[in-house]
Amino acid sequence: MPSASVFIATSLDGFIARPDGALDWLPVDCEPHGYDEFMATVDAIVIGRKTFETLLTFDAWPYGTKQVVVLTSRPSKLAIPDGAVCDVMSGSPQDVVARLAERGMKHLYIDGGVTIQGFLGAGLIRRLIITRIPVLLGGGIPLFGSLSRDIRLEHVATRTYPSGLVQSEYLIVD
Amino acid sequence: MPSASVFIATSLDGFIARPDGALDWLPVDCEPHGYDEFMATVDAIVIGRKTFETLLTFDAWPYGTKQVVVLTSRPSKLAIPDGAVCDVMSGSPQDVVARLAERGMKHLYIDGGVTIQGFLGAGLIRRLIITRIPVLLGGGIPLFGSLSRDIRLEHVATRTYPSGLVQSEYLIVD
Repeated sequence: MPSASVFIATSLDGFIARPDGALDWLPVDCEPHGYDEFMATVDAIVIGRKTFETLLTFDAWPYGTKQVVVLTSRPSKLAIPDGAVCDVMSGSPQDVVARLAERGMKHLYIDGGVTIQGFLGAGLIRRLIITRIPVLLGGGIPLFGSLSRDIRLEHVATRTYPSGLVQSEYLIVD
Repeated sequence: MPSASVFIATSLDGFIARPDGALDWLPVDCEPHGYDEFMATVDAIVIGRKTFETLLTFDAWPYGTKQVVVLTSRPSKLAIPDGAVCDVMSGSPQDVVARLAERGMKHLYIDGGVTIQGFLGAGLIRRLIITRIPVLLGGGIPLFGSLSRDIRLEHVATRTYPSGLVQSEYLIVD
C-alpha cells in the first residue's frame, strides 16, 4: 500500500483557508520550509474538487507535470488545465488508494480539508507535517474535523523558522 | 495595566477539553514543561464559571492559596471550596483587569475557553504559551473562537519534550 502524507500550513487556530477559501493570510516572503524536498518524494497529489477549484484561481497551475488526482462525485464537471497531469476519480479513500497502488505509486500527498479529513478518518494517513503560521483568523476552513475515535500521534520533530513558522511532524500510531 | 498570559494544553486539533469538559486525554506521566515556573510569576488566575466547576471535580483544589478570580454573571451561585482564595466578579474583561490593577496585580493567568476568548477579543492577552498534546480528539471545547479581525502573533520560542509535547510561546503584536 502507498504511504500517504499531509504537508500543510494552518493558522494557529487551525484553519487552512478563510471561509471563502482565501489564502491571503499566508506569508508571501517566508523562508523555504521543506516543501520542495517533500514534493520530490511524492508520486501523486490527491485533492478534492474544492481545492482543485482554488488551484484554478492561481496564476499558473502549481504542480507542473506532477501527477494530480482530483476526487469528485461528478467527474464530468471538471475542466483540466492545459499541461496539467490530472486524473479525476470518485470512490472511497480506500478505493482511491487501491487504484493508485495498482499503478505502483508509493507516496501520496493528501491535500485539502475535506480530503484530508476523509483519509484520516479512514486510517490512511501515515504522516502529518503541519506548519503553523503565527496568526489567529477566528474562522475558516478547518484542517481537522470530527472523528469516530481519538487518533494518537507520535511527534517526530519540530522545526522553527525566523519568520515565526513552527513546523511539526507527526506519525499516526493507531 | 497588568499583563495577561495564557498557559494551556490543547490537542493537535485545538481542543482544551472533550465536549463534556473531560481531560482524560491529557497525559498523566508527561515531564514538567514549565507550569511551576510560570505559576511562580502569576499574581492571579482568572477563570470562568465552567472552568471553576471543572476544578471542583478534582480531588483537591489545585491552586492552593493563589488568588483566583471567577467570572460569572451570577456571583451568588458559587460555593467556594474551603481554603481556596477565590474572588467572584462579573463585568467585562476590561472591568476585571482594571479592578485587579487597582489591587496592584501585575501578571494575570487567563484560563478556560470562554474566558480566554473574551480576553483575546478584548485585546487584553499579551502572551500565549500553548502545549500541544500529540492526539486528535475530533471534537470538544476549542481553545480559540471567532474574532472580529485577524490577530497577528510573534513566535518567541518552541520547546519539545520526549513525551511528544510541543510547547510554543507567542506574543500578540497587534
